[in-house]
Amino acid sequence: MAKQKDLSRITPRSESYPDWYQDVVREGQLAETAGIVKGCMVIKPNGYAIWEKIQAQLDARFKATDVQNAYFPLLIPESFITKEAEHVEGFAPELAVVTHAGGEELEERYVIRPTSETVIGHFFAQWIQSHRDLPMLINQWANVMRWELRTRMFLRTSEFLWQEGHTAHSNHEEAMQRVIQMLNEYADFAQDYMAMPVIRGKKSDTEKFAGALASYTIEAMMQDGKALQAGTSHDLGQNFGKAFDVKFQSKGGEHEFVWQTSWGVSTRLIGGLVMTHSDDAGLIIPPKLAPLQAVIVPFFRKKEEENELVREEGRKLQAALRAEGITAKFDEREGQPGPKFYHYERTGVPLRFAVGPRDIANRTAEFKRRDQADKRSVSLDGLVQLAKDELAQMQDDLFAAALKRREDNTVRLDSYDEFTELMKAEEGKFVFAHWDGTKETEAKVKQETGATIRCVPLEGQGFEAEPGECLVTGKPSAQRVIWAKAY
Amino acid sequence: MAKQKDLSRITPRSESYPDWYQDVVREGQLAETAGIVKGCMVIKPNGYAIWEKIQAQLDARFKATDVQNAYFPLLIPESFITKEAEHVEGFAPELAVVTHAGGEELEERYVIRPTSETVIGHFFAQWIQSHRDLPMLINQWANVMRWELRTRMFLRTSEFLWQEGHTAHSNHEEAMQRVIQMLNEYADFAQDYMAMPVIRGKKSDTEKFAGALASYTIEAMMQDGKALQAGTSHDLGQNFGKAFDVKFQSKGGEHEFVWQTSWGVSTRLIGGLVMTHSDDAGLIIPPKLAPLQAVIVPFFRKKEEENELVREEGRKLQAALRAEGITAKFDEREGQPGPKFYHYERTGVPLRFAVGPRDIANRTAEFKRRDQADKRSVSLDGLVQLAKDELAQMQDDLFAAALKRREDNTVRLDSYDEFTELMKAEEGKFVFAHWDGTKETEAKVKQETGATIRCVPLEGQGFEAEPGECLVTGKPSAQRVIWAKAY
Repeated sequence: MAKQKDLSRITPRSESYPDWYQDVVREGQLAETAGIVKGCMVIKPNGYAIWEKIQAQLDARFKATDVQNAYFPLLIPESFITKEAEHVEGFAPELAVVTHAGGEELEERYVIRPTSETVIGHFFAQWIQSHRDLPMLINQWANVMRWELRTRMFLRTSEFLWQEGHTAHSNHEEAMQRVIQMLNEYADFAQDYMAMPVIRGKKSDTEKFAGALASYTIEAMMQDGKALQAGTSHDLGQNFGKAFDVKFQSKGGEHEFVWQTSWGVSTRLIGGLVMTHSDDAGLIIPPKLAPLQAVIVPFFRKKEEENELVREEGRKLQAALRAEGITAKFDEREGQPGPKFYHYERTGVPLRFAVGPRDIANRTAEFKRRDQADKRSVSLDGLVQLAKDELAQMQDDLFAAALKRREDNTVRLDSYDEFTELMKAEEGKFVFAHWDGTKETEAKVKQETGATIRCVPLEGQGFEAEPGECLVTGKPSAQRVIWAKAY
Repeated sequence: MAKQKDLSRITPRSESYPDWYQDVVREGQLAETAGIVKGCMVIKPNGYAIWEKIQAQLDARFKATDVQNAYFPLLIPESFITKEAEHVEGFAPELAVVTHAGGEELEERYVIRPTSETVIGHFFAQWIQSHRDLPMLINQWANVMRWELRTRMFLRTSEFLWQEGHTAHSNHEEAMQRVIQMLNEYADFAQDYMAMPVIRGKKSDTEKFAGALASYTIEAMMQDGKALQAGTSHDLGQNFGKAFDVKFQSKGGEHEFVWQTSWGVSTRLIGGLVMTHSDDAGLIIPPKLAPLQAVIVPFFRKKEEENELVREEGRKLQAALRAEGITAKFDEREGQPGPKFYHYERTGVPLRFAVGPRDIANRTAEFKRRDQADKRSVSLDGLVQLAKDELAQMQDDLFAAALKRREDNTVRLDSYDEFTELMKAEEGKFVFAHWDGTKETEAKVKQETGATIRCVPLEGQGFEAEPGECLVTGKPSAQRVIWAKAY
């Protein structure tokens, strides 16, 4: 008999990291490929609840810096995209185009927004007259569409959800402050909430946003050693200001073009979350982003009067945990605990408690943390405090483990032969090495090894600038940069 | 010299209600027509902040009834729309179609979702196998597109933002309970938060959702006496279950089609908010939905040391109001109070306080409520409590005024001549009159008077069912229904 594929099996990471990822996303009930629309996905409740937590936290951070939310049209006249030369070159191959509407062929075709610099530039031109209208600080939560050939759930899909911030300033210095401010917000969020260490840096010209003067990024290392670009913040200079004629009258009475920024993170973050923390048993979600933080599972026995005590205790615990702001559920459905354990493990619930009649007699519960192998017995009466402590500890432990992994897999190299050898290995690395600053060298390395420059790290992260010689050409290099294979 | 149009003028309602509406939306900084895309709009920060408050409140209500959020693809294969016969007939004329993507013509064309029953039906068929999977309770916050010929900001735009709830049940009775439950949530929200009285009722077959067995609605009266359909909840029966083969195995082992519901409200609510409360001076927002609830404006004088006292007091008041959960701002920018008063009036801030050096000496402030004509002097020391009381009172007063207006403009009629005469008037009315239950009569009335059946009211709202004779044909009528002209 042919071996039948177990549809609910999670492929071990050692067997295939990409298959493992797909399995964890599916079994964690985060999303599924839509099938019906090329490269699109359905975000299921467990995945969407994580996105809501990401949104709530980022939205509060944006508002604290005086950013206001607004909403711009989904459809953009095709002619808009062509107004900024680099922008159209970057996005034209990925556009989805609306040609018919209301039963008729349209006079001008519309594209579904791949990003909104153009349409927002158009409105900024109407809203901004004077230096008193600046800075203008706008954010949009929206869906965008980029027709991708090779897609992977959350990491690269034709449609995705994101936020895009767009700001206009009277001078370059202030715009640059905003670029770095938002990059720092992203980095803080990634580290504090996602427990995902990131390196803040500047993109090479090859990798920058189409239409920007410069792009800044946060780069994270996934468990397989590959890099994930997790958020970007762009210095648009006056490029879009000139393309859309966004001018203001300065204090001195001159008419000048505004200086703009844009910055965004997307549902891609959820893919990063999965690939930073999860294991061969399924999803692991950092407590601060877990839709359900603690579950209480009953052991039911034969005697109904004993089970009634278990139900009472379970409900009491649920209420006590919720009273402390912990999202908790007592799963009192009929049935054995085994399948319930399995379900909550796969869907990434951080804390699991189990109570049966004997536990209640002893005033204990069985406790297991999702990121630890062993169960242990804990006191029922100190359970709420324990839950608070363990949630905080788990958040810290996940970050520490991810940081250690990155540090263990980051190397300084000065030999291109060693570099080439390293990039052949299954296990990816971040390589901190010198570069002569040319596109040609970057292209050669990419072609020969698959690695790209992830970023030129900003100061103060342990990757300090020191001059040297390019790994490949031996020409002078201003500083080392981070090289890696990337998602 | 030709009279130049004052671009910031608000047309009085007596002059033109539609112009007044447009002016209030513009001067209230809620939205503007996109211009670049037919029938689309930009929702500006003041408008979007109201939408966020609507979302937060409704989302919490949905979740309290065990609904989970998810996200489905924007694009739907054109063939999906045609699977439910009535559905395609209703939506085909309004579809926007994507024919090209990634630089190529697509094999199958996609439509931008006008609503998601079809795509969600497709996934329900995969997710639902057993009665244990039911009920399935899903909601989506999303943008949708319906290509409209005649558009008006918020009320009818080609693209709009909304939520669409979609549920599946094992039997019709449970599905109907959900339909009415969500209708009641909408009605409570409209009345408690929007201060907008609504009538809950059933739509006639002519007005029901394309593909539903029956549609239920909340109908509000605008200031001009016209009706606004503010939210709908649909009993889809097994129509989409059959079209998308959504079956479950019942407890008895039979394979049956699920019973589905869908329900939604949209950014249209913001239009309803404007047309329920605002006046000739601009926007009025009920306190519970106001992005900014109280503003403190300084009177600056010549002596800087006096002004410093004003600044201190203003900041203290701002902090004290915020500590009580009131969204408050002390506007300490340079400049005269007049233009500030004007700005906050137009943008609908419920409470306005003004303080100058003399007020501070007397421990008083000047106070004005947005919905009242007169200013008055209030004690600085009791100001926070006064603000709380006045916000609550204003919320109640707005509702009471709207309810009185509706009651004053609702009439019972038994003569079609009188009905026809009434519908000719500028000022609209709700007419509670008998109907023989036929499409023909409804069509005749619509053609001759412009009025449609807004709903057959549900019990318990003061519109009780009593048999009689149709206003038009004299044939037997089971009960009176609400007739009105509508947006």
